[in-house]
Amino acid sequence: MARPPASPRAIAVARGDEPADLLIAGGRVFSPATREWVETSLAVADGVVAGWGERDARETVDVGGSALTPAFVDAHMHLESTKLWIDEFVRTVLPHGTTAVAADPHEIANVLGVPGIAALAEAAAPLPFTFGVYASSCVPASPFESAGASLDAGDVLDLIERHGALGVAEVMNFPGVIGGDPEMLARISAAGHRRVDGHSPGVAGRALDAYLAAGAESDHETTRLEDAHERRQKGMWLFIRQGSASQNLNELIPDVVEHGPELAAFCTDDREPDTLLRLGHVNDCARLAVAAGVPEVDALLLASTNAARYHGFHHLGSLGPGHQADVLCFDELASWRPARVWQAGRPVAEDGKILPGAVPEAPIPELMRGTVRLGTPPPAERLALNHPDGARVRAVGVESRSLTTLHREVTLGEPGADAAHAAVVERHRETGRIGLGYATGFGLRRGAMASTVAHDAHNCVTVGARADGGPEDMAVAVARLAELGGGQVAVLDGRVLAEVPLPLAGLMSDRAAAEVAAQIRELNRAAADALGVTVEEPLMQLSFLALSVIPELRLTDGGLVDVGEFAYVPVEV
Amino acid sequence: MARPPASPRAIAVARGDEPADLLIAGGRVFSPATREWVETSLAVADGVVAGWGERDARETVDVGGSALTPAFVDAHMHLESTKLWIDEFVRTVLPHGTTAVAADPHEIANVLGVPGIAALAEAAAPLPFTFGVYASSCVPASPFESAGASLDAGDVLDLIERHGALGVAEVMNFPGVIGGDPEMLARISAAGHRRVDGHSPGVAGRALDAYLAAGAESDHETTRLEDAHERRQKGMWLFIRQGSASQNLNELIPDVVEHGPELAAFCTDDREPDTLLRLGHVNDCARLAVAAGVPEVDALLLASTNAARYHGFHHLGSLGPGHQADVLCFDELASWRPARVWQAGRPVAEDGKILPGAVPEAPIPELMRGTVRLGTPPPAERLALNHPDGARVRAVGVESRSLTTLHREVTLGEPGADAAHAAVVERHRETGRIGLGYATGFGLRRGAMASTVAHDAHNCVTVGARADGGPEDMAVAVARLAELGGGQVAVLDGRVLAEVPLPLAGLMSDRAAAEVAAQIRELNRAAADALGVTVEEPLMQLSFLALSVIPELRLTDGGLVDVGEFAYVPVEV
Repeated sequence: MARPPASPRAIAVARGDEPADLLIAGGRVFSPATREWVETSLAVADGVVAGWGERDARETVDVGGSALTPAFVDAHMHLESTKLWIDEFVRTVLPHGTTAVAADPHEIANVLGVPGIAALAEAAAPLPFTFGVYASSCVPASPFESAGASLDAGDVLDLIERHGALGVAEVMNFPGVIGGDPEMLARISAAGHRRVDGHSPGVAGRALDAYLAAGAESDHETTRLEDAHERRQKGMWLFIRQGSASQNLNELIPDVVEHGPELAAFCTDDREPDTLLRLGHVNDCARLAVAAGVPEVDALLLASTNAARYHGFHHLGSLGPGHQADVLCFDELASWRPARVWQAGRPVAEDGKILPGAVPEAPIPELMRGTVRLGTPPPAERLALNHPDGARVRAVGVESRSLTTLHREVTLGEPGADAAHAAVVERHRETGRIGLGYATGFGLRRGAMASTVAHDAHNCVTVGARADGGPEDMAVAVARLAELGGGQVAVLDGRVLAEVPLPLAGLMSDRAAAEVAAQIRELNRAAADALGVTVEEPLMQLSFLALSVIPELRLTDGGLVDVGEFAYVPVEV
Repeated sequence: MARPPASPRAIAVARGDEPADLLIAGGRVFSPATREWVETSLAVADGVVAGWGERDARETVDVGGSALTPAFVDAHMHLESTKLWIDEFVRTVLPHGTTAVAADPHEIANVLGVPGIAALAEAAAPLPFTFGVYASSCVPASPFESAGASLDAGDVLDLIERHGALGVAEVMNFPGVIGGDPEMLARISAAGHRRVDGHSPGVAGRALDAYLAAGAESDHETTRLEDAHERRQKGMWLFIRQGSASQNLNELIPDVVEHGPELAAFCTDDREPDTLLRLGHVNDCARLAVAAGVPEVDALLLASTNAARYHGFHHLGSLGPGHQADVLCFDELASWRPARVWQAGRPVAEDGKILPGAVPEAPIPELMRGTVRLGTPPPAERLALNHPDGARVRAVGVESRSLTTLHREVTLGEPGADAAHAAVVERHRETGRIGLGYATGFGLRRGAMASTVAHDAHNCVTVGARADGGPEDMAVAVARLAELGGGQVAVLDGRVLAEVPLPLAGLMSDRAAAEVAAQIRELNRAAADALGVTVEEPLMQLSFLALSVIPELRLTDGGLVDVGEFAYVPVEV
């Protein structure tokens, strides 16, 4: 990403020939390269740090000895997972000190293709934020999913050359890459000198070598300490993920404690609005890292400088003269809650609150709406298999705090089988295609849940109790989502208990973060209280049930998929 | 610089499905990110490291516990200063472990403009070497010099967009940049997201801030420890220079010892062939750094990984899978002399010697020849001022091991004045323009020296003794250079004592490094023995006499220049 053109006025301010717009005086400025805190002032002009030390200024803010750091950068995330439209996302994370993200818009890409990504990038451009967009490389994620669009190597190149994409986004089809699939290699090669983000859960040894030899440069799917170390040893960037569901920081961070901060950065990947509001964003990662023994200065490198470096955000990650004035002011760095946030020299947040008017509204592109196309919603009998008790079936096993599903085999009706009906209804082209199977681990005892957020093809996924009325509630839930244009819903006895409308691509809300978070909380509570669900974050678990590129067993609109075998498998054992 | 496209065969070798071209077995591999030595083998295929660990291979080299490191990268240099044509330069530095340089071809640019740079880049492309070319940004270096070509912002953009330049080369007109000169800012902005190399000797405080605010990202002209620290504190890259004349390593390296290796790399800037053959190249910098207290692993980062990172040589700086197999094997790392060098997986040097046939001949572009155009060479009376003894004059003061000249005032004829005639003859366009003045510090007692290497405009610079016959010997020297098509020469009593023919742009030889080094040695010896010269490397000193962008006083074809004032000054005080 190009630095902003040098401003002659900022240069004059640096020289001392003109007054600065703002002097942030009396702080201790973090110097990433020397790992020092330098007592100096920051003179800001035209959005950049023009100079260090005293200058005349139109406005002076004395921060009284506070720590000043470069703002935080999320090394890998999906806007769509926050369920927020871009302006509301920015309003939510700026108070936590994040002013830049590298985003893979591949949920939107799965629904709307290149025009969806282009519309998102365009909508983000006027915001006070560095929204780096990568070119989604695996749409659809696998041949087992029917997405709303598909992107080939030409589309990837188009996104990079015409729509400003920073590189190739997470190459999830790692089996294809490792196997030397020409189309996957062509998509990687579209990156040219730009970055190629990887996605290689559990990949190690020779397979990892093959993935690296193919050009992947980073991984955010690492879950084991030894894998983390192998990645950095072999020159691969380690993006330590702390999402709402996948929380890998505590497992991986000992490698940073022992071997230092090189080639490491934080990412959130998929964070729900409630997590953002309650725990924060990249600052939450830094807090946890320090709690686990990482020195504060190293945590700052992971949270800002390193991520900026990887993504070529040359204007960020440092408060040296010439860098954009994305400045965090901490009364106590140990709190990891910035007292003030400036973005490009403008104050945008204070004491955890966005400043009024700091973030303009980003108009919602019309193509984002009306994307749930089911025709006549399917009746109950098309949403459930009718195996009797005693049948031995494969079931997609879900677990709290993990996106990895288990390949379970259960006997229907046995105590502890916990089997629920599961269905994935194609929703982009009214094909009527439905994949059927079973899920286990939800604890669902009655009613149904459904979601149009269903990684990565974002068809309509639903689970329903094997008890009487379960399939009927699944049908009501799916019909309700068609009505809303997308969302998530819990249904019991034919009645909607709670719902999260997500009318933008069936993925995102057009409401404020707090409202969306409340809707999600209420929906999860309804699932637990009224439907008996026991797994944590059941709607997020539901939304990953169909993701056919992460082990072990998944259900798509095409049927049950064994991810390890990369093949369909029958429901019956 | 783009990574090479991933080779399906390398991926297959990584998987273990096909034999490697080469297995470098039994080594300890340096891991830059974790700062470890990993006992493993390197499987090489199609020029890249395909994998770590055992693989079948067509050829296995057991290195018996040797240290294996990524090859070295010179962060900033001028090919022309080596006086060698590109193929011979590559033959000279590969045995020292350098496989990549970032080159500013601004000497050639001063003589031949964009076509000269394009011809150089084209000639370098087939060689087993990463020859990164930057777009010279200050041609001519100042308005005080008459170069053979001038490059504006459009030319800089052209070099980047059409000729593969990596960024904007050292922006030497730092007063212009700091002053906000629009043309200089336009040249910087031509870089886009690419690098902008700086050149800011002695610049500190507000002036440094202004230079950084304008977009400069590195400096290789730092000579003081406190300046080195300020640069890294403020996020500027520090290229620690150890050239033939300017040797800054020992002064600056304590900052690396104290504050670590971030934003630091080695560069040679201007190294003579004799220095290359005798002391080495980047390996010499690493050796000195370790001797000064830098840990070996940090020295490796400065010598390889950091420089590769800065310049976007994504394929270099690491031996992780997917990186180009530019591998150094050291029996003893402490020697900093690689026992073997592989470039892109091919052996190119062993035990300090280039392997026969490793480097093909690079044809010399015809435009490089015949560039010294004087018309009728000037007679003696046009080359010397005729001030009598007792006159008080300004003189350009030279000192051993420094490129900074002194603004001296001497009384002609006084003991210790050591004044010599100095003249700079325009040689690109037969204008007949000659700048006249005095130099002091050479110790020249009789005869004359001349050089068409005369930074940066590369006019014909000559100094002659104030003794009888001095001006006449200057005329003979200049005429001889016209005859040779460029070079350096020493003359006494009308006779050429020794000479270094440099027929390529008047800057480079077409002979082997050892021969050129011997010619230079003999020329310097003749200057010392026959002419009485006392300064070290007198011909290199002569070649910097005209450089009007480094303090303090310089002589160009336009006259005497006070660099601090950035203005012509009279010879007489």
